[in-house]
Amino acid sequence: MGHKPNTPLLDKVHSPADMKGFSDSELRQLANEVRSETISAVSVTGGHLGAGLGVVELTVALHAVFDAPKDRIIWDVSHQCYPHKILTGRRDRIRTLRQKDGLSGFTKRSESPYDPFGAAHSSTSISAALGFAVARDLGGAPEHGIGDCIAVIGDGAMSAGMAYEAMNNAGHLKKRLIVILNDNEMSIAPPVGAMSSYLSRLYAGAPFQELKAAAKGAVSLLPEPLQEGARRAKDMLKHMTVGGTLFEELGFSYLGPIDGHDMEQLLAVLRTVKDRATGPILIHAITKKGKGYAPAEAARDKGHGVSKFDVVTGEQKKAASNAPSYTKVFAEALIKQAEKDDKVCAVTAAMPDGTGLKLFAERYPSRCFDVGIAEQHGVTFSAGLAAGGMKPFAAIYSTFLQRGYDQVVHDVAIQRLPVRFAIDRAGLVGADGATHAGAFDVAYLANLPGFVVMAAADEAELTRMVATAVAHDDGPIAFRFPRGEGTGVEMPEDPQPLEIGKGRIIQDGSRVALLSFGARLQEVQKAAENLAAKGINPTIADARFAKPLDRELMLQLAANHEALITIEEGAIGGFGSHVAQLLAEEQVFDTGLKYRSMVLPDTFIDQAGPRDMYAVAKLNAEDIEAKVLDTLGVAQLDSKRA
Amino acid sequence: MGHKPNTPLLDKVHSPADMKGFSDSELRQLANEVRSETISAVSVTGGHLGAGLGVVELTVALHAVFDAPKDRIIWDVSHQCYPHKILTGRRDRIRTLRQKDGLSGFTKRSESPYDPFGAAHSSTSISAALGFAVARDLGGAPEHGIGDCIAVIGDGAMSAGMAYEAMNNAGHLKKRLIVILNDNEMSIAPPVGAMSSYLSRLYAGAPFQELKAAAKGAVSLLPEPLQEGARRAKDMLKHMTVGGTLFEELGFSYLGPIDGHDMEQLLAVLRTVKDRATGPILIHAITKKGKGYAPAEAARDKGHGVSKFDVVTGEQKKAASNAPSYTKVFAEALIKQAEKDDKVCAVTAAMPDGTGLKLFAERYPSRCFDVGIAEQHGVTFSAGLAAGGMKPFAAIYSTFLQRGYDQVVHDVAIQRLPVRFAIDRAGLVGADGATHAGAFDVAYLANLPGFVVMAAADEAELTRMVATAVAHDDGPIAFRFPRGEGTGVEMPEDPQPLEIGKGRIIQDGSRVALLSFGARLQEVQKAAENLAAKGINPTIADARFAKPLDRELMLQLAANHEALITIEEGAIGGFGSHVAQLLAEEQVFDTGLKYRSMVLPDTFIDQAGPRDMYAVAKLNAEDIEAKVLDTLGVAQLDSKRA
Repeated sequence: MGHKPNTPLLDKVHSPADMKGFSDSELRQLANEVRSETISAVSVTGGHLGAGLGVVELTVALHAVFDAPKDRIIWDVSHQCYPHKILTGRRDRIRTLRQKDGLSGFTKRSESPYDPFGAAHSSTSISAALGFAVARDLGGAPEHGIGDCIAVIGDGAMSAGMAYEAMNNAGHLKKRLIVILNDNEMSIAPPVGAMSSYLSRLYAGAPFQELKAAAKGAVSLLPEPLQEGARRAKDMLKHMTVGGTLFEELGFSYLGPIDGHDMEQLLAVLRTVKDRATGPILIHAITKKGKGYAPAEAARDKGHGVSKFDVVTGEQKKAASNAPSYTKVFAEALIKQAEKDDKVCAVTAAMPDGTGLKLFAERYPSRCFDVGIAEQHGVTFSAGLAAGGMKPFAAIYSTFLQRGYDQVVHDVAIQRLPVRFAIDRAGLVGADGATHAGAFDVAYLANLPGFVVMAAADEAELTRMVATAVAHDDGPIAFRFPRGEGTGVEMPEDPQPLEIGKGRIIQDGSRVALLSFGARLQEVQKAAENLAAKGINPTIADARFAKPLDRELMLQLAANHEALITIEEGAIGGFGSHVAQLLAEEQVFDTGLKYRSMVLPDTFIDQAGPRDMYAVAKLNAEDIEAKVLDTLGVAQLDSKRA
Repeated sequence: MGHKPNTPLLDKVHSPADMKGFSDSELRQLANEVRSETISAVSVTGGHLGAGLGVVELTVALHAVFDAPKDRIIWDVSHQCYPHKILTGRRDRIRTLRQKDGLSGFTKRSESPYDPFGAAHSSTSISAALGFAVARDLGGAPEHGIGDCIAVIGDGAMSAGMAYEAMNNAGHLKKRLIVILNDNEMSIAPPVGAMSSYLSRLYAGAPFQELKAAAKGAVSLLPEPLQEGARRAKDMLKHMTVGGTLFEELGFSYLGPIDGHDMEQLLAVLRTVKDRATGPILIHAITKKGKGYAPAEAARDKGHGVSKFDVVTGEQKKAASNAPSYTKVFAEALIKQAEKDDKVCAVTAAMPDGTGLKLFAERYPSRCFDVGIAEQHGVTFSAGLAAGGMKPFAAIYSTFLQRGYDQVVHDVAIQRLPVRFAIDRAGLVGADGATHAGAFDVAYLANLPGFVVMAAADEAELTRMVATAVAHDDGPIAFRFPRGEGTGVEMPEDPQPLEIGKGRIIQDGSRVALLSFGARLQEVQKAAENLAAKGINPTIADARFAKPLDRELMLQLAANHEALITIEEGAIGGFGSHVAQLLAEEQVFDTGLKYRSMVLPDTFIDQAGPRDMYAVAKLNAEDIEAKVLDTLGVAQLDSKRA
């Protein structure tokens, strides 16, 4: 498990109150110890390493200067929160990060009062902090009170419209509010977008060597409401030197850029801001992702997401892979299609690695677009591409597509534009937990008129669905597939488009039909094997399409079986609901059918291994088996369920 | 119907090509004629008047200088598109605007090749235009080609994050792209937000009298890639004078502000831009909403949305109202609750009039927040308020809440924060058509764990649901209600909170149970009256809650009736799907039940009167009656359906 580092100062910190007596140089040392502890912890758990290392000094400085939990420190995305967790009473569980029953890899309200607002998706922190600031001024939490409201947000997150909306509102409301722009010029993907260039220009215009003085003199940059004329003159000067006008034009005071690893600068600036800030203020701190750990600093992704590793060498322990990941299969299938059709292009919202589009971009750089963390724009940009005659694939995780939902409805579906949605991370995703679950997409897409909605049962099917999406030019089409490795199934040489709205029979049986939609099919097949040993031989079908449904197949299954059970890795309102609606309209229920629909349960499921999460969801083979026995009224051998 | 104006030049224009020979002074006259025609048309149809009048000169200038439909002119929101429709071959149908089978009140791809991208929701135009621009450069539409891509967007729409996301991406891609900022300092509501103040400062810094020269000399402001040094010097100068740096920092060339009603300026600037633009350019035009029609200019809302009116006096013909609107009932109920509880506060996304919150703001200005067109921020801001101990009511139309969906899931539902969603415009809405239909909210909210989802059957119920929402502090709660007038039902003096998850029996009957969710209840009751005449006496229940469902009520209705029919004004995946899931799990279908679920059909329904739209949807009393007869196998007297 690796040696635990020597941390004499950190050992004394059980909550931020224990840091209050530390000298500035002790705080510097504390930061070093927090860094060592972070590296040690992640080496045994895996997780987000680089982001946390980049904010070690900032985290220590924030907790030294401000008074959490009364002051609300809100970490945007919050994958950088491990140092914060170490300092706020969770060090004893830090080696359970992202494990079943362990600490979340993100901030979480239910986990600690020091996490005033949970996150995992990007760019929510300024909105939340502004909500707290307004609540404070309205007397919202009289029992404990609300102090300063502080959002810590990365430069990548600043490309999202939501952050802009929040700044626009904060600049208008003029409440005291502190935004720390943690500018590491490196979100998950290399930075894209004009905002990123802008921030680089700010940084280029103000080298650090001049800034120690500037930071100490920060007080002179803070607004003095009584000296409006003087401030304007100063602003004019700043326009011509340091910059920051974009934020100032949105109503923020701008301080920076400062060196986010220089404890002296950080403490000076934060203390000044705490003493003097009136309205909204933005502190621009330059940090290095992976700072202070050579293997992370040297890595292309700065140790963004790592598996368990050896602290000395930095070598990660990757599990041996049996089959290619769905993500990679998707990317390669799309490249193959793009070879044949020069209209095929692709859009990602700041996830070229996660979606596999990095591979596509290497092959077809002019046909691949990373729009930044901007799902709303990404979807409508894709709609524009489709209206302009292209065949765009918008590759967006199920959970992030939620952020472009209105654009899916208003710009794609209503206009019946052939945007192809490649929906990765469908179903439960493991260590990232509830915030990253792809639970709702079938429900929120299949209810849109004109949409075609598919789910891949395995990676071979995925390649056929990519081909289907290229061929389908009459309206929007979506296909979903899970996180992780495929099943190792044989891959088609030249995958052919599927017939729209046609499912397939996997296995003929009797009494009960198991109608699967998506990658639970393997569990369904396992369940069928177990049932065979008990004398029950289910029919198994793969619906392939939640919309349009294969009416003929459904009616045939209903007519020829005592029971029909649908299985999907999605929430209620999706595939099963569409099947029930069809069966009802077709009068199938009138005369009786043992119909059941297995969906994700009505609860957000905490992180664990995917198999454990599906056990909670009751969607594993044994759950399917139990459901069949229960539905058919067959007593089970063991009586666990009684 | 009012006299048609005298329009000698306009009479010659059947498509923009007919304008190409016009002199500049003829174009000025053409604009005047288009203005008169717009006023005349809207006087007989009602609709959006002020916005169109504000862009008459801009519309004429755009069509004179550019070559639609090859050049793609994309109107943001597009409620200002009536002059555009008049000039693009639709004048003969302009007096059918917003009527059944008539022209849409918005741009619509299926209506005309001059509408390259439809809209109705805000802030989508830059994304779409960028999509076209990229498609152009990739050879997306080789048959006709794509020329210039032009987005016309209002200052209000600029407060939305989506516009920022699009500019951020456009500034990065550096494609030739023209954005016209139509700054009338007046979206639907008075302007809010820092961006609005910023635009005012730009305008204040550059009075028009100096600008005729500036516009003619616009060429000198355009980027000259070969003279980078010179441009920088010029930029520096502009920082200190005209401004526009915010847009330039996002990678746009900035031209303006110019007088959007001065044809000479407009033509000069647009011609220069057409000749010389390389990358993305933003033209800042100052216009007046309602320009040129005194009653509109004098109105508080500048004639934003009007009913039919007398052209001479401007007097609008309002239909006599029998009952208060749901919107007003909501606002007044919320004010009553706020009188008793100082934690009650309210959030609107630029719709203080439409949501009724204007009334609330007048009474409690410090507790009401207009965040601008910013649903994403608005939802998470509300989540922050709730986390800070307040009781926020986020009042957002069903169709616009789609824009904050991820925030509903990620910031509200997962954290189980008690944000109250007041969802106006549920169901079909009439003249605004498919883009404004509130069809999907029950499906996309009721599938979220921990959510309470209600629908009001009438305005008295609405007041009870407001009280219920105030009282419910354990997680999110939503209540939906339709557009338009209530039913005139007697109002409770002091509405009491409902028991969570409990429906009510409206009428006891036999054979068939009609289970209504929401305001179709009146139609259900009408249907029951008609059925009574045929000897069928249905039980009628009002579910009140789609989540949690009233299990006991459902099972009782299923047990005691031959048939159970759910009725809701929402798409599949909502209330009926939840009922079906419950009945399936409870083994009700095993032994047979004539179960049917009446939902919105799988089609986007074009504008018409609400009753006509519900006829298309087959959700009126006669449709419910027919469904009952069909389900029970009773032959109908007329055989329309055969």
